[in-house]
Amino acid sequence: MKIADMIVTPVAIADAPLRNAPGIHEPYVNRLIVELVGEDGESGFGEAAYSTQMHEDLQRLRPEIIACDAATQQRLYEIVATHLDADPENRPDPVLKNFDLSPAKVKTALPRTFSPIEVAALDLTGRSLGLPVAELLGGRVRDTVPFSAYLFYKHAGGGGEGVDEREDVYGEAMTPEGVVAQAQQMIDRYGFKSIKLKAGVFPPDDEIAAIRALRVAFGPGVPLRIDPNTAWTVETSIRVGKELADDLEYFEDPTFGIGGMAAVRHGLLAEGVDIPNATNMCVTAFSHIPESVREDAVQVILGDHHYWGGLRATVELGRICSTFGIGMSMHSNSHLGVSLMAMTHLAAAIPNLTYDADTHYPWLDEGDEIIVGGKVAFHDGCVTVPTIPGLGFEIDRDALARGHERFQRIPYRDRDDAGHMRRTVDPAWERKLPRW
Amino acid sequence: MKIADMIVTPVAIADAPLRNAPGIHEPYVNRLIVELVGEDGESGFGEAAYSTQMHEDLQRLRPEIIACDAATQQRLYEIVATHLDADPENRPDPVLKNFDLSPAKVKTALPRTFSPIEVAALDLTGRSLGLPVAELLGGRVRDTVPFSAYLFYKHAGGGGEGVDEREDVYGEAMTPEGVVAQAQQMIDRYGFKSIKLKAGVFPPDDEIAAIRALRVAFGPGVPLRIDPNTAWTVETSIRVGKELADDLEYFEDPTFGIGGMAAVRHGLLAEGVDIPNATNMCVTAFSHIPESVREDAVQVILGDHHYWGGLRATVELGRICSTFGIGMSMHSNSHLGVSLMAMTHLAAAIPNLTYDADTHYPWLDEGDEIIVGGKVAFHDGCVTVPTIPGLGFEIDRDALARGHERFQRIPYRDRDDAGHMRRTVDPAWERKLPRW
Repeated sequence: MKIADMIVTPVAIADAPLRNAPGIHEPYVNRLIVELVGEDGESGFGEAAYSTQMHEDLQRLRPEIIACDAATQQRLYEIVATHLDADPENRPDPVLKNFDLSPAKVKTALPRTFSPIEVAALDLTGRSLGLPVAELLGGRVRDTVPFSAYLFYKHAGGGGEGVDEREDVYGEAMTPEGVVAQAQQMIDRYGFKSIKLKAGVFPPDDEIAAIRALRVAFGPGVPLRIDPNTAWTVETSIRVGKELADDLEYFEDPTFGIGGMAAVRHGLLAEGVDIPNATNMCVTAFSHIPESVREDAVQVILGDHHYWGGLRATVELGRICSTFGIGMSMHSNSHLGVSLMAMTHLAAAIPNLTYDADTHYPWLDEGDEIIVGGKVAFHDGCVTVPTIPGLGFEIDRDALARGHERFQRIPYRDRDDAGHMRRTVDPAWERKLPRW
Repeated sequence: MKIADMIVTPVAIADAPLRNAPGIHEPYVNRLIVELVGEDGESGFGEAAYSTQMHEDLQRLRPEIIACDAATQQRLYEIVATHLDADPENRPDPVLKNFDLSPAKVKTALPRTFSPIEVAALDLTGRSLGLPVAELLGGRVRDTVPFSAYLFYKHAGGGGEGVDEREDVYGEAMTPEGVVAQAQQMIDRYGFKSIKLKAGVFPPDDEIAAIRALRVAFGPGVPLRIDPNTAWTVETSIRVGKELADDLEYFEDPTFGIGGMAAVRHGLLAEGVDIPNATNMCVTAFSHIPESVREDAVQVILGDHHYWGGLRATVELGRICSTFGIGMSMHSNSHLGVSLMAMTHLAAAIPNLTYDADTHYPWLDEGDEIIVGGKVAFHDGCVTVPTIPGLGFEIDRDALARGHERFQRIPYRDRDDAGHMRRTVDPAWERKLPRW
């Protein structure tokens, strides 16, 4: 299907005051919606994390993408690569420049900028061919995709500002009890079978207590994960790993870098503790894999098509993981249904994606979803893989327009969790990693 | 497209008396043609090396494949895997049991048996969707695929027997001069820009002389490769590598196993010789890759969708190669146009397939091709990647039937190069690897 137009629409969605190692979520998170219009008038959609740089890059790419064939995604990749004039490993990441959990070179502009174009091209191709995207990726190996409950320490508030302020569905969660209550609410609504706690917010013993409280509340059968986003030193990570030896399904980015993660892994093994390390921070591009394999730093990679370069690249990451005996799970940022469905088709097509995937979707306010029918339904923690063409949804044009108006109205642009922490919680806040 | 039928047709094609390390090609080589018939009556085709075991397996799979959707290739894989009840690494290879260049576990039944089904399913899917197979694999990154001239030491004779005996187009080639004449003929007909010599036939100094004669005849700009199929010890390999240090593009399987190849690589590097090792013998499955990476045994993998598990799996192999800085080229066995076109679409979709691919296609007698229009055209050593749906050919039903009649008529079944060597050249012949 020839591409007749590419329309890039930034949208803002309300976001609750969720805490993390570098700070706190702002009242809105911005996303970029990429629409590829086929010459028959049908459209395909992709979604990406917003950044001013990527917004500009995508807009500048429009004349080059038009008239390409959506089915030839590798040509689209070459166009993006040429446009960015990028050494894929050296161009600083456009999304994380303020969030900045990782060294500048860790994430890259090329795979990030290509990703929403590729997803939209696959969606458009699938729609024009009558084929679900999972089938374009080699075919589904599962009919439902399990996700996990994604818990955050959280201040009171539902996100949004002024007339746009949202209901605080989950309430405050600043203690182990609050975390357990949040988990219970989320599991009651979505049916999740596993739980992840975003940590690195309070001193490690408090977060150990939260994991223990979750274990007591939900019993021995529920896999638990903790993710302090590199807030801990190697020594602290080893101590926490030992304390939680019997409780963690995997240990997500306790400390910084491939070297640090390797030191944690080998330190824990030396103590007889065999919790796999997981990452979406130190192995985020294909070029990071050889060193990680050599050091045995990471035993689970959390794939994310938004920065691994799209759905096909992430399927290929899956083969690398199975080849090297690395487990595979899926990372998430705040997102809309477009990305949720892309993740669902992707997970359906990766045989070895055997861990429940992360998703921020429970934190999305119903009023902000831009697909027809509102928020995607979960059953027993799972999303059903659509069998209709493309990604399997229709865009709600009114909701998309509202999201764009919201974006135009708000002052927030590039993500700045640390700045918002200073503005709203602690004027003396500094991003400090490791903190403990 | 729902699969209404699967038809497996063994065909015999005439083969010239080509020499190799284990013996000599028999007068015929058998291939399996897998046809998946869609419920709309359209068909897709795949081709595989023949073996009695695989023929039986494919026939037994027929009722399980029927009614599946051709677009869901991973479900087809699961069916084959379940049927073979296979640990993919442990079932002995069905094709190479007599050829036996490699240890029993090196090649495997599951990816081999799945491959022609997957290719046929992609062909059928592409035809039903109006999309070339390269686009189903992510899209072409090149419009033509370069192949190399594949030279053999050769006795007089054109292949086939009795009334079926074929013209000896290339003549005998048992000396450096003969090899050069063969190369000249092949390059005149096909326009190849690089040359591979199948070696391991004569003592190494004779084969060094042949490479030097090729260098003199074709000048410094033509990449040369030598492939003795593990006929040499590590010591001999290092000696040959030093002698040909300035002449080889890569050094294909000089010696046996990942350990042997690593010893050759590191031995040559210690002597200041940096010729990349290439293989289609010691790294032939995903499970072999970690050890090879660890030992830096192989710098170029010769992918082959026939035993890596189909076209999608080989695209994934391409990503592994680019991730680990391993070059990629393509292996070949005697084959028809179905496999040639599958190789062409595959090579078109692998960005880092930067070496000219191997092909035995020049050795195929025009009378044996089973696609409409006869043998595929080469221009300047390249095959043009089709832009029409599927693999881009129509099957010549009469030629297919003739090929099957030929198969029924001949006594040859599973490949037996050593046995044929004893029967026709040297009654005392023994397969001996390494021989020098």
